[in-house]
Amino acid sequence: MDSYLIQVNGHGDHAPVLDVHLKSTGNTISPGKVKGRKPRWAVRASEMSKKTFNPIRAIVDSMKVEPNPKKAMISLSLGDPTVFGNLPTNDEVTRAVKEVLDSGQYNGYAPSVGYQSCREAVAAYYNCPEAPLKAQDVILTSGCSQAIELALAVLANPGQNILVPRPGFSLYKTLALSLGIEVKLYNLLPEQAWEIDLEHLESLVDEKTACLIVNNPSNPCGSVFSKSHLQEILAVASRQCVPILADEIYGDMVFADCKYEPIATLSASVPVLSCGGLAKRWLVPGWRMGWILIHDRRDIFGNEIRDGLVRLSQRILGPCTIVQGALERILHRTPPEFYHNTLSILKSNADVCYAALSAIPGLQPVRPAGAMYLMVEIEMEHFPEFENDVEFTERLISEQSVFCLPATCFEYPNFFRVVTTVPEEMILEACSRIQEFCEMHYQGAEGAQDLECDK
Amino acid sequence: MDSYLIQVNGHGDHAPVLDVHLKSTGNTISPGKVKGRKPRWAVRASEMSKKTFNPIRAIVDSMKVEPNPKKAMISLSLGDPTVFGNLPTNDEVTRAVKEVLDSGQYNGYAPSVGYQSCREAVAAYYNCPEAPLKAQDVILTSGCSQAIELALAVLANPGQNILVPRPGFSLYKTLALSLGIEVKLYNLLPEQAWEIDLEHLESLVDEKTACLIVNNPSNPCGSVFSKSHLQEILAVASRQCVPILADEIYGDMVFADCKYEPIATLSASVPVLSCGGLAKRWLVPGWRMGWILIHDRRDIFGNEIRDGLVRLSQRILGPCTIVQGALERILHRTPPEFYHNTLSILKSNADVCYAALSAIPGLQPVRPAGAMYLMVEIEMEHFPEFENDVEFTERLISEQSVFCLPATCFEYPNFFRVVTTVPEEMILEACSRIQEFCEMHYQGAEGAQDLECDK
Ligand SMILES: Cc1ncc(COP(=O)(O)O)c(C=O)c1O
Ligand SMILES: Cc1ncc(COP(=O)(O)O)c(C=O)c1O
Repeated sequence: MDSYLIQVNGHGDHAPVLDVHLKSTGNTISPGKVKGRKPRWAVRASEMSKKTFNPIRAIVDSMKVEPNPKKAMISLSLGDPTVFGNLPTNDEVTRAVKEVLDSGQYNGYAPSVGYQSCREAVAAYYNCPEAPLKAQDVILTSGCSQAIELALAVLANPGQNILVPRPGFSLYKTLALSLGIEVKLYNLLPEQAWEIDLEHLESLVDEKTACLIVNNPSNPCGSVFSKSHLQEILAVASRQCVPILADEIYGDMVFADCKYEPIATLSASVPVLSCGGLAKRWLVPGWRMGWILIHDRRDIFGNEIRDGLVRLSQRILGPCTIVQGALERILHRTPPEFYHNTLSILKSNADVCYAALSAIPGLQPVRPAGAMYLMVEIEMEHFPEFENDVEFTERLISEQSVFCLPATCFEYPNFFRVVTTVPEEMILEACSRIQEFCEMHYQGAEGAQDLECDK
Repeated sequence: MDSYLIQVNGHGDHAPVLDVHLKSTGNTISPGKVKGRKPRWAVRASEMSKKTFNPIRAIVDSMKVEPNPKKAMISLSLGDPTVFGNLPTNDEVTRAVKEVLDSGQYNGYAPSVGYQSCREAVAAYYNCPEAPLKAQDVILTSGCSQAIELALAVLANPGQNILVPRPGFSLYKTLALSLGIEVKLYNLLPEQAWEIDLEHLESLVDEKTACLIVNNPSNPCGSVFSKSHLQEILAVASRQCVPILADEIYGDMVFADCKYEPIATLSASVPVLSCGGLAKRWLVPGWRMGWILIHDRRDIFGNEIRDGLVRLSQRILGPCTIVQGALERILHRTPPEFYHNTLSILKSNADVCYAALSAIPGLQPVRPAGAMYLMVEIEMEHFPEFENDVEFTERLISEQSVFCLPATCFEYPNFFRVVTTVPEEMILEACSRIQEFCEMHYQGAEGAQDLECDK
């Protein structure tokens, strides 16, 4: 998802050349753009397009650094597991789409919320006694991104606010601001394995709060909430009557020693829109297949939210039908070994990376429990040369040709994020270069004091 | 595109059960949704979701008629050429996607505006000396629907207006209203082969007009504008300084006796966003592959509109990558016979249908020149039993099990639309049933007078 970062070409931000210069030309009344005056071209981009803002792009674009030409670039920045070829999707996944193509039966329009049979397949796959699902509770979308967009667009009006994790995935803010929705950031606590600061969360709720976004497992943290922590979050939502938008795109992607709990399975009363998709677990993010699962056992969303989602889905008419058509086979036929294999690679990479970074002076990695990321704290007091995480990661590129996203991209300064889908040997090489870099720039306690005395 | 009509299940429109009932509970100040009061659940669908409204659905849903159980249903209502299996896509199109799947190279994220190589392929395909195109002038989207959405969202602010054809495709209004943009309808003239009433068009322009939508070839009319008419339209746009959103999804789908001119090839000065896609010409509407071609040779859009489009594309991250990856091969390898064959079927169906309907008392079909539709006027004075086109088409279903969309769906009462992708024998059967229906209900001049005398 962050992949567009360094792929889209930016355009300069010139001031527009043309503008309207009104000149009075007498009082002839003619129909037209400016009555009685010769119109001029003045095409401006809309406010919405200006409010649609990707913080990662803005930060990364402004970094403008060249990698060290003597070292091959290693990018640990892209949340796209397919870039290095070490994590191919399963053959059954590809085969399913080829069968659909051969059938010729899935070239026409599907209903805008998805084929009924595909909605049934997703419902059956995620159905469980604690959180039953039927076809009508599933809306298929163009990626989890559109699932989040529709969920936000149906739940919040301009002027309302949503509660968003800090650090957190930047799309929430991008979408909210483009819709005129305010964002309030609640803190995650690195020292508690990135659990939510519940008191802070609850203090942010006000009468304009339209929903609470819970991202579990987390991008960028790689953290996984325990059952009891999820229950505490639900208690806040229940007490404050705030519905939950659960971003569960990394659902089931947790390491062997912990368990993933879909948040909707833990409460019968709090209404939840759970957003997911094929992108990460099935390793096909480009296919743009996502979904919303509507959990509303107390009928709090009611028809109003369901109808709203259906109406909003009609704007672009849902995801590609050949992937829709393959969905049931993909969910049923993908062998369990495939998921296990992905997770064991991710876990092993995370372990390797965590161990290597832990040994580096001035860095404090936080051990992940799932997903495909790991956050690393930079003890800035030991790197007085650098103003912040952006400067730190910039210099890491120019000296060591290693690219990690500064966590300012996730509203969390003084950390950086590492992606753990990269092949092990590249992670090791990257970590050893990070070590070299840190050793070069690290200032021990005395050094830091010296600097202060100099002032 | 109209296909979701009868596929999506509607939900009743219940009033929400829960509401906020504020009770004063003393003056304890606690953080929370309603300070000092126990919050209640009150989740409401957003204004935007309520403003997102598909007129076709509303009309068709309210029709609620049962077909005649003695006659098999024939639906001439869906703008989806794949429903009857008589118009399969070309094998090269399917093969191209299968090759992409086999390569395993197109499973990751593409840039949100599409892969550079695919943008190049589309640019090369539509490039011509009069309207040159480069990769950076192409933005790939999830269907032509999203192309139109992005184009509108970048050009217009809430409170501005756009000029939309009447009769016209309903999505323009659906999208505009959901974005808070006002719609002004300009007339097409059936007696002039659905050319635009230019005077009416120009009279609608005001200082808040953000763009002019030109749909050529047209849904629902099946009309194709001549070069000189397009030049007249461009003259209005140029005089009034209004940019054009050209919906050219039926581009090149014109019958042998006339020529399709992309509007951007006829003016170097009027900026044009041309929206298109694979849906209709390549007969794969479900694949959701569309594009915007940016024509701006005088730099009136400038970087501002381009940047805005790029930013807006980041909300859902573009179309499915396996279709993107196949695009170049699809554009190059599809044999010319395939397009010819489709058009000769469409033309032959249009001729058959036009001839049959012309012979029916009380109906006035307008001969189409392209696309896959035909509009039929109902001489309502000869059918005094029916209030309007909706009632007429309703009764056509209940008596003859033939379903045509009442043109009220396109803001054009007293017409209905026939889709010409249906197999010939079904068209003939449908026309003969329509004939029976009209003969049954037709009232000649005297009959009509009698009725009036009765009053
Ligand atoms: C937390 C989170 N949510 C949603 C998405 C978007 O997923 P998709 O590619 O299916 O739109 C991503 C992608 O990186 C993500 O990290
Ligand atoms: C005039 C017109 N524009 C746009 C579309 C939407 O095309 P797509 O299916 O590529 O979104 C249609 C579909 O019927 C159409 O008739």
